[in-house]
Formats: sequence, C-alpha cells, structure tokens
Amino acid sequence: MLSDFGTVDGYPAAMRGVISTIAPGAVVADATHEIASGDVAAAGYVLARYARFHPPGTIHVAVVDPGVGSTRRALAARIDDQFYIAPDNGLLTRVLLHASSSRIVTIEAEAYRQSKVSATFHGRDIFAPAAAWLARGLPFERLGARIDDPVLLDLLQPQRIGDHVQGVVEYIDRFGNLITNIPAAWLDGSSRVTIGGRDVGALCTTYADAMPGSPLALTGSDGMLEIAVRDGSAAAFLGVERNAPVAVRAVLPGEHHFHH
Amino acid sequence: MLSDFGTVDGYPAAMRGVISTIAPGAVVADATHEIASGDVAAAGYVLARYARFHPPGTIHVAVVDPGVGSTRRALAARIDDQFYIAPDNGLLTRVLLHASSSRIVTIEAEAYRQSKVSATFHGRDIFAPAAAWLARGLPFERLGARIDDPVLLDLLQPQRIGDHVQGVVEYIDRFGNLITNIPAAWLDGSSRVTIGGRDVGALCTTYADAMPGSPLALTGSDGMLEIAVRDGSAAAFLGVERNAPVAVRAVLPGEHHFHH
Amino acid sequence: MLSDFGTVDGYPAAMRGVISTIAPGAVVADATHEIASGDVAAAGYVLARYARFHPPGTIHVAVVDPGVGSTRRALAARIDDQFYIAPDNGLLTRVLLHASSSRIVTIEAEAYRQSKVSATFHGRDIFAPAAAWLARGLPFERLGARIDDPVLLDLLQPQRIGDHVQGVVEYIDRFGNLITNIPAAWLDGSSRVTIGGRDVGALCTTYADAMPGSPLALTGSDGMLEIAVRDGSAAAFLGVERNAPVAVRAVLPGEHHFHH
Repeated sequence: MLSDFGTVDGYPAAMRGVISTIAPGAVVADATHEIASGDVAAAGYVLARYARFHPPGTIHVAVVDPGVGSTRRALAARIDDQFYIAPDNGLLTRVLLHASSSRIVTIEAEAYRQSKVSATFHGRDIFAPAAAWLARGLPFERLGARIDDPVLLDLLQPQRIGDHVQGVVEYIDRFGNLITNIPAAWLDGSSRVTIGGRDVGALCTTYADAMPGSPLALTGSDGMLEIAVRDGSAAAFLGVERNAPVAVRAVLPGEHHFHH
Repeated sequence: MLSDFGTVDGYPAAMRGVISTIAPGAVVADATHEIASGDVAAAGYVLARYARFHPPGTIHVAVVDPGVGSTRRALAARIDDQFYIAPDNGLLTRVLLHASSSRIVTIEAEAYRQSKVSATFHGRDIFAPAAAWLARGLPFERLGARIDDPVLLDLLQPQRIGDHVQGVVEYIDRFGNLITNIPAAWLDGSSRVTIGGRDVGALCTTYADAMPGSPLALTGSDGMLEIAVRDGSAAAFLGVERNAPVAVRAVLPGEHHFHH
Repeated sequence: MLSDFGTVDGYPAAMRGVISTIAPGAVVADATHEIASGDVAAAGYVLARYARFHPPGTIHVAVVDPGVGSTRRALAARIDDQFYIAPDNGLLTRVLLHASSSRIVTIEAEAYRQSKVSATFHGRDIFAPAAAWLARGLPFERLGARIDDPVLLDLLQPQRIGDHVQGVVEYIDRFGNLITNIPAAWLDGSSRVTIGGRDVGALCTTYADAMPGSPLALTGSDGMLEIAVRDGSAAAFLGVERNAPVAVRAVLPGEHHFHH
C-alpha cells in the first residue's frame, strides 16, 4: 500500500482491515503513507521505483487521490506480472511507461467493493476491496470493463543534442538528493554536470568521493544521474526544486577538471 | 497496534518482538504509532474508526498511556467479536459506546506478562504479552478478574432542537478536515452548516464540489458531518480546534443559498 | 528492518520487495526507518533495545550507512541466537557488547546479492538479499569470510568512585526522556541525581510520582537511570543533549530531600 494518508488518523489501518476481512490469508504491507498530500507525480515515481523489485503476482494499492468522489475512474491494471490498483489520475504513468505489457480495467463491479461506498475514502471502500478480491484469486477482468485511455502525466524526457544533454530533476528524496531523468549511462569520463548555474563536476562513483558538504554527481540506485551533497542536502545547498533543469556537456580539451 | 510511541526509539519493535516470541504464528501489524503524545481521546477516536473494519477475532493493542506505572488498571476487553488491550484511561470509550456486547477483565495474571515488568513500558511488558497469549488461544477470562466500571470519557453528544442541531468538532485529521459528532443523516437539502462564525453552506457530495481553497460541508467516510477545504486545511482556514461548536440549521424560505 | 531511509521515497519498500522475491515465505517487519540521517550511534542503541525481545532466529537488517559505496565492509553476524546484517561502521557495537557469543562474516559472495549492485543503495542490493538468503536457510558462513575486527564505537562507561557515580545521557527518546548509561541498580534510597547543574532528586518509581512539568529520576524500561519530565520533555526542560554528564551521589545525613 502507498498513500498520502499518513498513519495517524487510522486510514491505512481501515484499509488493512478491509483487506484482511475479504482475504484473510493475504500478506499486507505498508510501502509508505507519507507521500506529500495530493502529490500524484511523486506517488507514481516512488511506486515505479519499488514495484520492479517485487515478486510476480504482487498487488500494489496506490491511493493519492485528490479527485476522490468526483467522476475520475478507479483503475485496476495488470502490468507485466504484477497488479496495480489506483485512481485514474496519472499515478500509473511511469509504471506503464516501463511496461512490456499492460491491461487496464475500471473498477466498477459492485460485488467487489464495500456495500456502502463513501464519497471521500475510496481507498477503504473501492481500492482495498479490489486488491483483496485479486488476492483471493478473482480473475482480474471481473473487476470491470477494459479501457485503453488511462490518464497519463506528461513526463519530461531528457534531450540529447550531440554531446550535450538537457534534463530535469524528477524527484528529490528525503536526503535532498536530486534524481534526474538523465540515464547515467549517457555520461562518460568527459562529461561535466551543471545544475542551478553551478558546475558540479564529473561523474563520481559514490558519496564518499566528495568532501563533506560538497556537491557531486553520481549514478543513483536506479541508474539515473543524481546530484548529491555528501552528508548534506543537495536540494538545500543548491536551492533547487523538482523540475529544475540539469545540463551535461563534454569537457573541452584543455579545460580544467574540478577535483573534489 | 496503536500507540503514541513513534517508531524511532524502537518501542513498537520491542512489542512486536515480545508478541512474536510468545505467539510465533501471529500476524502483527502497525495501525499507527503517531498518535499525539498522551492524546487518549484521539487514540480512542482513531481506534474506533478502523477497528470496525477488521475481521472477527482481531486483537487490537492500543497503548496511549500517560498514567503508566501508576495504579491505573490494564484492561482486556471482548467487544462484539474482537479483542482490545488497553490501559484503563478511557481509550476504549468509543468502541464500547458502539458495542452490542462487551466483557472486560483487568490484566493481572502474572503468568501472562513479562517476567520482569518495568514501571514505564507496560506496552512491552503487559499489553503485548496479553495480546500474544490471546493470539495463542488463551481463554480471555484467564487474563484477570471481570470488571464493570471501566474509565469512560465524557463524549459530547449532538443536540437536536427542532430543525437546529448543535454539535462539536470531534476530530481533526492530518488533512485538516474537521469531523463533527453530527450524523450527516440528520441533515437534508435545506440544512446549512455554520462553524467558527462562518456559514459553509449546504451539504455537498464530495471535495470536488467546492472551489479549491473554499470550505465545504460533506458526509465524511464514517457518515458524520465533516467540514473540509478543497486542496487545503479546514482547520487552518477556519482557525478551528477540536471541540469547536458546529451548528446546523434549516434554510428559511427566501434565503439565498451559497453556491460553491 | 531498521534504517534512516524514511518510508516516503520507497527505499524500504524496495528492500521488502527484494526479500519477498528471494524468500517468499519470510515475514518482513519494519522496526523503524526514522533514525536520524546517518546517526549510527542512535541506530545501534535502538537496535540493541528491541533485538533482545525477539525470538531466536530473527534476522535484523540495520542500514544506517553514511559510508555506502566506500570501502567499508558489509557484515553479517550471528550474535547469540539471532542474526544481524549491517554495514561495518560500529552499528553493531552495543549488540556485540551484550553478547555471550558472536561470529561475524563479511558479505562478499556475489551469488547472494543483487546481480547489479548500485553504489548508493546497498540496503536493497546487498543487505536485503543477504537477509533473505539467511531466511531461506543459507548457512551463515556461506555469505563470506570470517572476520574478527569489526568497527566498534567507543561507548562511554559510567564511573563509580565510592558512592559517587558519573555517567552520561546515552540516548534521548522522542518524549524527551534522557536515558543514561548508569544502571538504576547502582542507586539506592540515599542517591540523588544531578544533571545540567540541576538536582532532580531521588529515584522515583514512575512518571506519576512527579508533578506535571517537573523533572524526576526513575528506572527506565531497560533498567537504566532515566531522567524524565512528567507530561513533558526533560531534554527541552533541562536543555540537555546526548552525552551530557549525569552525576549520582549519596545524600549526606541532615541534608534535605526534594519532594515531588
């Protein structure tokens, strides 16, 4: 389960109860309930990061749902070998982008939701029951009609022009690391990284390659170019927010290297 | 498990260890450990909200216990078809209020607690072991002597005088939604809601019925009248705290309606 | 699992996925992911507090790892009847200190890590897989070569000179309770406790023995001398930080007692 509910009000606990009632043997785990309120883009980013490490058959329930109770659809998706339950607001964009195969239905069958559906808590009344019925073995297609037009977020793609690359900061984690949309494999030994008007040098191997408090570029754990500050926050140090531009260019012969 | 321990100091992890040692097969789940420190009323509110969605036989351990180590009693309760373990400080008031049947004992039997009981962490030394022994199948009555006088909080009831209703904000969730003690079913199309000196209009269906940043009244996920601000915090917007009065009155003929 | 990752970025969820993929039947639980960033000493303190309540065979994965990707080793340890997976940065010092027996190996075998190891997330790529393989029954020694020189933190020991004891605050929990390194058993009825230049009196039994807002000394849940403020934070009240000195001395005949 992933959400922006926090745990303090008991919302995820209610979802867990619903799942355990419908599917007593299901293993229910919390990924996070601390997504910033209504931040669908962050939810989708985080979900895609951890989902790919889960075993086939895992059912991911992801509820960041500012449009709850409106006409937005509720979706269940079989994407490669896992299942996803989420509102139709773009949350699944990134998972779908990386998918080899996907099949999506709207969750409509009344038999597989709570008998009384509130207008404000579909996590408990629609999404959790759908997940639980899948866990019980319900064929996916029974949840509702197939659709082919899920809402998709417009994800920015990095641009590569000759040996220049232009990208953006896609996600900032709680350590203040700036994770870009530029594959680190696009960089080589001659590449230098610029962000927020500041040259942060060539690609390092690990945090320890920089002096404490200094920024560095490195390959993040998902293979993307990441800008970090050793023992600090790159976001704070560089004054940078999500979607900030990041540039990579080749070093010209005779140029000096930054050494950390 | 519900508590005000947070997770950072490892207190819930110690409780989990105790339970797993006594009842190796038990499924242990965290509802929340983020209840505000010592806020027994909030703990009881949250517990009641999620407990009713859990399957029969669930054992709820709820430890918000500012009187730990004093003479306050430790309770185990069978309420309808679930079990509750909590200090005798009113935490179970709301669950008991909604119950069809209940039976309460004090946890006294030394065989079912840690061999050494600390004065400051009964969650680990008394409550967790009691829960674990129930999970192992210990008959509930073996924990201690029956009592009929649990500490009860004085919950405010909404007043209905003709077509006027007077209630209070019972709980404020982390989104800043104001959940009242007034059943939404008491309102009809002619009802208007006033809180903090402000008319927030008639009952809407969902958050999306208001303009972003505007307050609205709607039916919360537990069927109670709730005041929210779309994409914002009603508590902050209205400057309202728990126990703030909420009034509902019928619209007089000829009065204008607020439209969001 | 214990870490300083927080849950919001999905790092623990990725670890859980890795474990569930390798060891499908393993029960995976979160102790905490809220250790302060890079605070190895706090991580070790918290781990030692809760580990001793867990059943034999438990596998503790503890990742607070500011040196990730550097040459610091990755360790697996069998300490008494449980297993520990952690970076070699002193995190296991306290568990080792209390151990009757221990055996430590470096995690080196490539067969038991992710096929591609990132430089920045060994929690997912090295520690989680090692734990999962142990959970599957892999003999501990297969993870790597035995070592006898783990990095150890220099833990301060309390000094006892006659009836004076000098110690320090070892840990401050989220309630602001000051947990010292002085065993409460070293105190008797004549002992008085001084911290931050303030006499906080004799050893009390429980929080309720002090007036609300007043500091008191008591026996913490691990048997150590603890200084607390009833319904408040001793750390804030006394302006005290970790490693602050704490003194215990005997009351001289004729001296007045503080009464709470």
